[in-house]
Amino acid sequence: MSGASVHFETRIRSATQEVVIGRNHRFCLIGERINPTGRRIFQEQLRAGDLSAIERDVAAQVVGGADILDVNMGVPLTDEADLLAKAILKIQGLTDKPICIDSSVVEALEAGLSVYQGRALVNSITAEDERMAAILPLVKKYDAAVIALPNDEDEIPMEPEKRLELVKKIVDVATGEYGIAMHDLVIDPLAMPIGADTSTGEATMETMRRIRDEFGLNMTCGASNVSFGMPERHALNATFLPMAMTAGLTSAIMDCRTPEIVLAVKAADLLLGHDEWGMSWIAGARARKAAEGAGTT
Amino acid sequence: MSGASVHFETRIRSATQEVVIGRNHRFCLIGERINPTGRRIFQEQLRAGDLSAIERDVAAQVVGGADILDVNMGVPLTDEADLLAKAILKIQGLTDKPICIDSSVVEALEAGLSVYQGRALVNSITAEDERMAAILPLVKKYDAAVIALPNDEDEIPMEPEKRLELVKKIVDVATGEYGIAMHDLVIDPLAMPIGADTSTGEATMETMRRIRDEFGLNMTCGASNVSFGMPERHALNATFLPMAMTAGLTSAIMDCRTPEIVLAVKAADLLLGHDEWGMSWIAGARARKAAEGAGTT
Repeated sequence: MSGASVHFETRIRSATQEVVIGRNHRFCLIGERINPTGRRIFQEQLRAGDLSAIERDVAAQVVGGADILDVNMGVPLTDEADLLAKAILKIQGLTDKPICIDSSVVEALEAGLSVYQGRALVNSITAEDERMAAILPLVKKYDAAVIALPNDEDEIPMEPEKRLELVKKIVDVATGEYGIAMHDLVIDPLAMPIGADTSTGEATMETMRRIRDEFGLNMTCGASNVSFGMPERHALNATFLPMAMTAGLTSAIMDCRTPEIVLAVKAADLLLGHDEWGMSWIAGARARKAAEGAGTT
Repeated sequence: MSGASVHFETRIRSATQEVVIGRNHRFCLIGERINPTGRRIFQEQLRAGDLSAIERDVAAQVVGGADILDVNMGVPLTDEADLLAKAILKIQGLTDKPICIDSSVVEALEAGLSVYQGRALVNSITAEDERMAAILPLVKKYDAAVIALPNDEDEIPMEPEKRLELVKKIVDVATGEYGIAMHDLVIDPLAMPIGADTSTGEATMETMRRIRDEFGLNMTCGASNVSFGMPERHALNATFLPMAMTAGLTSAIMDCRTPEIVLAVKAADLLLGHDEWGMSWIAGARARKAAEGAGTT
């Protein structure tokens, strides 16, 4: 699989809206906060069947600029499948933004896919045979796209070469055994915390460049991982994403409530030629100025 | 001249301090404000022989994080050579930071070089034969390094291919005819305003990647050019530099008084593995927090 200058386009849809992830498109922001992990009150509400807090989270991500909403309902001691299906139905009544259905539980992914209107992004598979065997048939059945992480049963390899081998395995299995199209695979090259090892930034970007150049696949990543454990995380994340975009990253799962990170992505879109005439940048600057004025009066 | 994995190190010195520009070093900030262009009061002071305002400009650039100070004394209707020599003597009494001697007037460059203590960076030559013939012998005589711009008598070419041809011409002439070492050539690949043509960002980065990969030369650029004519220039500049750093840019001429741009460069240094253990980043964060605390009390 040597794609060279091939670049795939991943199409994600709600009932009424399509988002295209691809090298010649502006960067795709996947809003990540519709997730009870680490949020005790939200967890208690969900456990009691109260999904009302989701409205605020959806609104905040959409206002912040999310193109797709990542939805995770992983609350311990609940029927996650039921909760995820209900959350998706609720969110599709609130917004036209497409959804990234996020769960480690296969039944929850299927429940979410079965009620979803449109073409979902599934989060996620790894290169583990068991996980691919459980999830890829669902991705195929429901005509979805899927995020894939290059780690397997044995390890999360640190060397770009080994990650590329696992990407190749995912590509071979997904396309060869399950009939998934290349354009429906979105690789998460696994951005590791720079604080643990300052060589990981270059290794991550090298991995990205090779996935782009050798496979032409779209990529996403958990943008905030890179700054884990470091001070001034927003500034690091806001710098990392534009750099990663030069290496082929075409989307990120991130909290869109942080304006400086969203702004950095928009600036990088402009600098990479994905904002014709700079119209979005100029319109955004005007809107931000108007919002500032409104805030001070 | 096909350098492949060769990467040169440019050494600039004051009497007591050395700055190394190179791919495996942290990014070199060349502070640009010691320059009367567009500053009427400063021009009048300089014309009257009053150089005292330079102290404030030097202090502001050094506090902001400048590694090298660009010094330009281009005031109309003055003896620029005399003024530049006096300014350099004054600045070398104020700071240990090395100096980038900046003038379009050959006599001023020579006057500056003749009084300078250390190893200067000269700003600049182009691929024009006449300019190279006038300035490269001075660079050689005073053992300096020099910034070179890939434009000639005919044009500032927009295509990376043509800029690379002019880089090749500069390299051939400087090394072949004037005995300048490769490590003493710093190419300014000419970042053009993104507002005039949104394809220039990619073209500039492509030019940088090729200068890095084919010649291994250090590079600098006027970082603020890219945002000329656009709103929210600081945010664009702060995004551009980290992206350009992934393409091989190793220094920039910029106003170090803008903390968000300096911060983005420091974040990129960390992400590129040029800040061992993240010590500079962590120390910087502490200092910024302390400064904030001091500001609010």
